[in-house]
Amino acid sequence: MDHVNIDALAKAVLGKLFIELEASGRHVHVTEAQAQTLFGHGLTPKRPLSQPGQYLANERLTVIGPKGEFHNVAVLGPERKEAQVEISLTDGRELGITPPVRPSGDVSHSPGVRLVGPKGVVTLPQGVIAAQRHIHMTPADAAHMGVTDKQIVKLQVFTERPVIFEDVLVRVSKDFATFAHLDYDEANACGFRQGDLGRILQ
Amino acid sequence: MDHVNIDALAKAVLGKLFIELEASGRHVHVTEAQAQTLFGHGLTPKRPLSQPGQYLANERLTVIGPKGEFHNVAVLGPERKEAQVEISLTDGRELGITPPVRPSGDVSHSPGVRLVGPKGVVTLPQGVIAAQRHIHMTPADAAHMGVTDKQIVKLQVFTERPVIFEDVLVRVSKDFATFAHLDYDEANACGFRQGDLGRILQ
Repeated sequence: MDHVNIDALAKAVLGKLFIELEASGRHVHVTEAQAQTLFGHGLTPKRPLSQPGQYLANERLTVIGPKGEFHNVAVLGPERKEAQVEISLTDGRELGITPPVRPSGDVSHSPGVRLVGPKGVVTLPQGVIAAQRHIHMTPADAAHMGVTDKQIVKLQVFTERPVIFEDVLVRVSKDFATFAHLDYDEANACGFRQGDLGRILQ
Repeated sequence: MDHVNIDALAKAVLGKLFIELEASGRHVHVTEAQAQTLFGHGLTPKRPLSQPGQYLANERLTVIGPKGEFHNVAVLGPERKEAQVEISLTDGRELGITPPVRPSGDVSHSPGVRLVGPKGVVTLPQGVIAAQRHIHMTPADAAHMGVTDKQIVKLQVFTERPVIFEDVLVRVSKDFATFAHLDYDEANACGFRQGDLGRILQ
């Protein structure tokens, strides 16, 4: 018999049954031109994120709303075609704006905010959303779990304060790794800890 | 035929099917002796809460943790036998403490905090919890919905970001009005708005 790597086997089996959860803190996506204005150069990677090609940048921003501001906010790279600021509803109360709950990229008629970097300021007329909870999936995992791109599913999470999240958006792409993304309101509401798992209910 | 009050009828019917949700912000319960120390007098009612006999006090406190503090925190009356500080997990991160998720009144071995009022300071050795989500019910509503005191149920909420909360504690008393209580992490995770309803799933 060939040598069996028990850990790899266990991980592969779990990956067929469950989806690992991740909590996304508030963060900003900027365009190349905005990065130049804010930082004087393009974004530089500090560490990779779970989604292939995505990274936490070394650069940080101040985000200013009508009632409050957040300092040292994470910027995610690479640069995008359009700026997007993802915050929780709790964050929105502190900034003094009400972000709509939207899929990533859907920023039309959302509130704006001001971004302040070490080299400059960018005033966004729109772009602030609370990201709709979603599951990034590889085509293989989506096929195995019987779901398709843009499907809405329930996600049951096995956490300290267990919850079944409804209206969870499935996104399928060969460029994704399979992870469910919650914001910090959702993560705290379910008592999320790193490594916690969930499963799709249909 | 007698005159029918349509609004009252609709409300009575809804009350047989659904449970109204309420979001509880961070707040403090103090003892009579602590009220004397902090304010120089007992608590005074500002407005009644949904639970009979309970009120929001005119008095406000500062709550100080190892990493942060909250000013102007609500105090709920009447005074209790033991102090209790109810915060969300998000609040805990800001204060620098991790509150256990507990039913109200179960504060043993929970973290402490410092309370500062206009007339004095009280250092609590314990008492900070994140309230386990719960449903206050009258005996009649509990009987109608087929649940009993201390039962754990699922609560499906019909909100902007719909969720089924698991591990929800039912509390039944003739002194209660029927309302489901969420903290602000949970309220924001489900997009709660005042007047939103839920129902018990078993």
